[in-house]
Amino acid sequence: MNILIINGPNLNLLGRREPDIYGLRTFEDYLAELRGAFPMHTIDYFQSNSEGAIIDCMHEHGFDVDAIILNAGAYTHTSIAIADAVRAIKSPVVEVHMSNIFARESYRHVSFIAEACRGTITGFGLDSYRLAVEAVLHL
Amino acid sequence: MNILIINGPNLNLLGRREPDIYGLRTFEDYLAELRGAFPMHTIDYFQSNSEGAIIDCMHEHGFDVDAIILNAGAYTHTSIAIADAVRAIKSPVVEVHMSNIFARESYRHVSFIAEACRGTITGFGLDSYRLAVEAVLHL
Amino acid sequence: MNILIINGPNLNLLGRREPDIYGLRTFEDYLAELRGAFPMHTIDYFQSNSEGAIIDCMHEHGFDVDAIILNAGAYTHTSIAIADAVRAIKSPVVEVHMSNIFARESYRHVSFIAEACRGTITGFGLDSYRLAVEAVLHL
Amino acid sequence: MNILIINGPNLNLLGRREPDIYGLRTFEDYLAELRGAFPMHTIDYFQSNSEGAIIDCMHEHGFDVDAIILNAGAYTHTSIAIADAVRAIKSPVVEVHMSNIFARESYRHVSFIAEACRGTITGFGLDSYRLAVEAVLHL
Amino acid sequence: MNILIINGPNLNLLGRREPDIYGLRTFEDYLAELRGAFPMHTIDYFQSNSEGAIIDCMHEHGFDVDAIILNAGAYTHTSIAIADAVRAIKSPVVEVHMSNIFARESYRHVSFIAEACRGTITGFGLDSYRLAVEAVLHL
Amino acid sequence: MNILIINGPNLNLLGRREPDIYGLRTFEDYLAELRGAFPMHTIDYFQSNSEGAIIDCMHEHGFDVDAIILNAGAYTHTSIAIADAVRAIKSPVVEVHMSNIFARESYRHVSFIAEACRGTITGFGLDSYRLAVEAVLHL
Amino acid sequence: MNILIINGPNLNLLGRREPDIYGLRTFEDYLAELRGAFPMHTIDYFQSNSEGAIIDCMHEHGFDVDAIILNAGAYTHTSIAIADAVRAIKSPVVEVHMSNIFARESYRHVSFIAEACRGTITGFGLDSYRLAVEAVLHL
Amino acid sequence: MNILIINGPNLNLLGRREPDIYGLRTFEDYLAELRGAFPMHTIDYFQSNSEGAIIDCMHEHGFDVDAIILNAGAYTHTSIAIADAVRAIKSPVVEVHMSNIFARESYRHVSFIAEACRGTITGFGLDSYRLAVEAVLHL
Amino acid sequence: MNILIINGPNLNLLGRREPDIYGLRTFEDYLAELRGAFPMHTIDYFQSNSEGAIIDCMHEHGFDVDAIILNAGAYTHTSIAIADAVRAIKSPVVEVHMSNIFARESYRHVSFIAEACRGTITGFGLDSYRLAVEAVLHL
Amino acid sequence: MNILIINGPNLNLLGRREPDIYGLRTFEDYLAELRGAFPMHTIDYFQSNSEGAIIDCMHEHGFDVDAIILNAGAYTHTSIAIADAVRAIKSPVVEVHMSNIFARESYRHVSFIAEACRGTITGFGLDSYRLAVEAVLHL
Amino acid sequence: MNILIINGPNLNLLGRREPDIYGLRTFEDYLAELRGAFPMHTIDYFQSNSEGAIIDCMHEHGFDVDAIILNAGAYTHTSIAIADAVRAIKSPVVEVHMSNIFARESYRHVSFIAEACRGTITGFGLDSYRLAVEAVLHL
Amino acid sequence: MNILIINGPNLNLLGRREPDIYGLRTFEDYLAELRGAFPMHTIDYFQSNSEGAIIDCMHEHGFDVDAIILNAGAYTHTSIAIADAVRAIKSPVVEVHMSNIFARESYRHVSFIAEACRGTITGFGLDSYRLAVEAVLHL
Repeated sequence: MNILIINGPNLNLLGRREPDIYGLRTFEDYLAELRGAFPMHTIDYFQSNSEGAIIDCMHEHGFDVDAIILNAGAYTHTSIAIADAVRAIKSPVVEVHMSNIFARESYRHVSFIAEACRGTITGFGLDSYRLAVEAVLHL
Repeated sequence: MNILIINGPNLNLLGRREPDIYGLRTFEDYLAELRGAFPMHTIDYFQSNSEGAIIDCMHEHGFDVDAIILNAGAYTHTSIAIADAVRAIKSPVVEVHMSNIFARESYRHVSFIAEACRGTITGFGLDSYRLAVEAVLHL
Repeated sequence: MNILIINGPNLNLLGRREPDIYGLRTFEDYLAELRGAFPMHTIDYFQSNSEGAIIDCMHEHGFDVDAIILNAGAYTHTSIAIADAVRAIKSPVVEVHMSNIFARESYRHVSFIAEACRGTITGFGLDSYRLAVEAVLHL
Repeated sequence: MNILIINGPNLNLLGRREPDIYGLRTFEDYLAELRGAFPMHTIDYFQSNSEGAIIDCMHEHGFDVDAIILNAGAYTHTSIAIADAVRAIKSPVVEVHMSNIFARESYRHVSFIAEACRGTITGFGLDSYRLAVEAVLHL
Repeated sequence: MNILIINGPNLNLLGRREPDIYGLRTFEDYLAELRGAFPMHTIDYFQSNSEGAIIDCMHEHGFDVDAIILNAGAYTHTSIAIADAVRAIKSPVVEVHMSNIFARESYRHVSFIAEACRGTITGFGLDSYRLAVEAVLHL
Repeated sequence: MNILIINGPNLNLLGRREPDIYGLRTFEDYLAELRGAFPMHTIDYFQSNSEGAIIDCMHEHGFDVDAIILNAGAYTHTSIAIADAVRAIKSPVVEVHMSNIFARESYRHVSFIAEACRGTITGFGLDSYRLAVEAVLHL
Repeated sequence: MNILIINGPNLNLLGRREPDIYGLRTFEDYLAELRGAFPMHTIDYFQSNSEGAIIDCMHEHGFDVDAIILNAGAYTHTSIAIADAVRAIKSPVVEVHMSNIFARESYRHVSFIAEACRGTITGFGLDSYRLAVEAVLHL
Repeated sequence: MNILIINGPNLNLLGRREPDIYGLRTFEDYLAELRGAFPMHTIDYFQSNSEGAIIDCMHEHGFDVDAIILNAGAYTHTSIAIADAVRAIKSPVVEVHMSNIFARESYRHVSFIAEACRGTITGFGLDSYRLAVEAVLHL
Repeated sequence: MNILIINGPNLNLLGRREPDIYGLRTFEDYLAELRGAFPMHTIDYFQSNSEGAIIDCMHEHGFDVDAIILNAGAYTHTSIAIADAVRAIKSPVVEVHMSNIFARESYRHVSFIAEACRGTITGFGLDSYRLAVEAVLHL
Repeated sequence: MNILIINGPNLNLLGRREPDIYGLRTFEDYLAELRGAFPMHTIDYFQSNSEGAIIDCMHEHGFDVDAIILNAGAYTHTSIAIADAVRAIKSPVVEVHMSNIFARESYRHVSFIAEACRGTITGFGLDSYRLAVEAVLHL
Repeated sequence: MNILIINGPNLNLLGRREPDIYGLRTFEDYLAELRGAFPMHTIDYFQSNSEGAIIDCMHEHGFDVDAIILNAGAYTHTSIAIADAVRAIKSPVVEVHMSNIFARESYRHVSFIAEACRGTITGFGLDSYRLAVEAVLHL
Repeated sequence: MNILIINGPNLNLLGRREPDIYGLRTFEDYLAELRGAFPMHTIDYFQSNSEGAIIDCMHEHGFDVDAIILNAGAYTHTSIAIADAVRAIKSPVVEVHMSNIFARESYRHVSFIAEACRGTITGFGLDSYRLAVEAVLHL
């Protein structure tokens, strides 16, 4: 399977940003481990802090890849445009969050994106991505 | 007259995206027909999935063109920045929507942009653009 | 085509009422011009300040005319009964407003009627009616 | 007993209007059957699309008839004036709805009229009226 | 001065309706006394249970009479159309209520009409009308 | 027909509890009368103060009985789980309330259960149950 | 009759403060005229910018004077304590406002005090006080 | 590891209940497969329609088992008591939902339980349970 | 006097549950001390995690005991059914909370039960129960 | 122990004010009894209708007395400043109300002060003060 | 320039009150330093815990001083009367807060006063006052 | 010190855009003056209309510069992503607004960014930037 992971704003700072919430490991470091755990599958990766670039990426790949794993970061709570992109493309999308967004500020309890996705995995740190790959393989 | 049509996020997928809501025709195909219907006028076209690029485009052309026809897509409901750009430029702006946004999810009933525009045309599919050109010619 | 224009409360005062918002021209005067612009079509006209009379009119003609152009005035924001009438009849209905209701008091931002109509044209003054006729001819 | 049935806006279209919600039978047709089922009682009938006419009717008969069965249609959700009329008259009023208003749009979940009535019967189609007569006979 | 008193829905029942709130006297009886108290002025009177008829009356007389005293009854809380009529006419309008609407149900605390009127007099029973005449004479 | 009446919390106290709202008669006493009025039909009865036990009962009988008459008491306003049970079973459910819940505290105006039921009968005291049986016989 | 006028915060600046809203005349100047208009009655006057001092004054005089005319200024919208004082004393209280509070900011549409008073007079400028005296004389 | 799965109200009807949302398979059937997929671990199972019984079960086992997988069904949206139980016990709890609760009624978008759990897995049908076991093994 | 203490969900875990909020002492241990402090009175005790069982208990004893001291735990904020039981029985009920619910999550600031009780004692830890007994002795 | 009781607005009228809610006894009369009940302790008393004077008093004594018993009256629901004073001083504060504020108007259900206090005692009439002293002695 | 600093409730406790939020320094100590930093200007100072006294002070000096620097403390969030005083006087007013009110309780996010002031400086501790003086010198 | 000023959407139009709100001067012109006023410090400048580009810029420089002065324009009210970037970087951030956002539309009263910043300076026009530099130098 071809799987595309898309990370949204500030997730490029993983390992440097608020480590008590997000941990000390960079995503690139974790990605190598993740690929190692699923050697039969291709896992591509894209990160952007721009809402528009995330949508562009979904348009470009969202008719070809077998699934998209999307952590839209803070755009989760504000972007109807990304949610529309999820609906507009053909590839199924699984929503992922590292932190438990329901245990944080109330404006993080709302997800425009969740209702457009197949499912959501929240709160398991980096392991949320592995679980999403597991989920994708059974869709 | 010089008229600029600006389309927002996901509208580049017209013809591929949720055809029961948006139809099967691409915008480029429609644009040719539209230009044919108004041979005396210049109709330019810009599309972007990025809020910032839409604002940039409005700044660049919004002091020169005779009118802008704006379908801001999902940014309609979330972008105060685009609404501020409408107020900041000199060219009059007409808001356009293909689908009837009032018959969809409640978060699509809010438009930050409408109050800054001259007028709004909603729900006539691609024909909304022709009506907007008609409106612009009489402003 | 047979087209029926229905105007709601206070629109009979056009030309006398708050001219800075609604202009100085009477609707009857404009109607003559409008009919002249579409000589191939019949454009009938009805105005009432009564919610019930508007519904009666829609029931009487809403199974025969080709389209109804409805400016429900202030009933736009309060009348579920008129919206139900739009749903109950067979003729398609296009909603029209002369002023930009989104740039006025917040209680004018809500339209019960919009979600039941084919489309909405807002903010172009009397020209909103011409655009509505244009829209109707392409439905 | 003298019983008066009052139907509000759009209920005159029964049988023609949205048959998947309201069915295919006219109210007049049903009324004959209803009268047949209660031969000992007089059942009068009034319908209007006008809020004012409904209030007038309640004032005229609401001090004489033994009970009023009121389906205020969409005015249920918007008319404090009809609710005040229910309070102002002497005859007891039973509220009736054919469709299950709680399974429709959220603005139909509110009834200004219910709190002023003796009781409410909702969701049984035309049979709601028969149940209301049954209820009235035991008040 | 020519003064027109307009009473809205259910106020024709004064003397018969909920006497603990509205008292036992009919408005006609009171009107004679009121006219006697202001023998130098003409006080006309109109009552209707219909929102549309109230607007019609305001249109007909609202460019000629010196002032209108308006008790819109329950339409106070729901009618944007009457409020628009107040704005549309030339004669100044004073809003009147017999009962203290702020001591009743919360949905009676909202007045669409108040903001369009010169002033409001609330809670003095029938004497509210005399105070309104007093107010009108000093406008 | 086999009909099952289910009463929710505090309804076992009927006759002892707030008699100005609920009357002085016990439900058991009334049930005998009700059965006498419908001698051709079986009317079973279950009461519990436990949300879980009500759901258990609906699961156990909700695929066999011809109809369920449900007065969920205060769980009406708080239990999504009972509403889900109504949707999950096969037997049609009619909602019943003795008091006029719309004339009481505002938190009693909300019913999670109503939208899942065939219809609702409210405000006729114990007679609400007889009307519900009448309704059930015509479903 | 003994009548006490109590003015709340900022009303001591009348004549100096925002003259387009409140006019150019001082209250003391107006008070002389008002006393002249009612020579048979005693009209006392108290002003304070302090919520506590207004309550103290009401406690001190509110069991003796025949009526209190209260313009609580901005405390109208925030003070439950003054409203409680109105309820606690014996003298009837009439609420007065010079400006039309319903045509200003939405937080001025709420009055904690109104529901505790006999009646309210709003929007007639200084003449509101004369009307309040008129009202008091007929209580 | 010792893992306890707790299912809440109506989940015992799996396979019989609304199969378009919840599928046709019983949970017992799925459980056998799940145990087969994790032969090294003990997976216990408890289901109840009673909020209190779910809390009792969590108290009894929540200090001994290595993890709890909780699908609280409709109690997810209404039970603070179960959320308190999650906080009160020692075993980590993972929240699971079969359907995408964000794509259903708005009252299902709220979870009292989520903020007390380690993480949440939503929308993958029965596979949500397998993913939860996967998640638990990596906590 | 016969006094019945009823504790709601999770209070059986006292001493084991979140000791920084609820302390380290079991309720049984405290109960012995409490009985020792009031040797002239009988203090019975009931705890359940089930809303229905709490209501059952109140029905069984609420017509005989002299007073009930109720700590409904999390049901305080969600159970209209328990509040109805308080109203339905004869014995006076005093509401008790150990923690200061107003200093915790906002959904704990609402108490359905408070308005039905004689009084409420909040925030004094286990000593809240002693104060409630003191209060009961003076009712 | 040195204990200071602070009473807020309108509580000086106790015995004269709305006796059906607050009783017929003056606070001074009760205070003598209260002091008699706790002869080992000093109980000082301060009352003011002024928010500022209450804060001044708390500042003056709030670093010396062993505890403050505060009935802030209507300021309970509106004064963040008094709540800040509670947080700013050293002496522990216990909140007291005579009436059951949860059974009155909804704007009395909010307490800014409660979250800053050690605990709250509500609804026991004058006996609330005795219970507060009891509470203070065990803090 | 003549500048007047006005501090509201609890700010007299600076140095003693919640030092983790407000620091350990008294305002008097800081004021000496501030005056030293601006030797060419007169900086007067007033503090009160009373809303009325703050308004009195603004009235007394607000037509003479060149500017007022106002830290209204908790009255910021509740006092429309002080905001009206800002509008009523002639001297420009700059709003100051030491702590970041947007990072505290949600009821501190609202400022009635801000919209009436020239500008606002928030979150820089005591240095907010120096910045306000800097701002005032450039108005 | 190295200070970076970041301006958000539409601020590049300063001098051309709504001069009654934002003035007639370009930011570049002002920047030269500002640098001249602080010759000892380096003041860099970045402007973008793109939310993503603003975040990129903060990531690139937010671990090196001594402080960032951020005027996020309309993104202030909609961007959680920029607020997260403020939290994610090391350099302190001061929020700046030229206009008094509290005196404009209500949707401009909300700032997601404020709670993440050290402090906020609002309403002093271009001078807000100078004050921010002053603030930064004392952090």
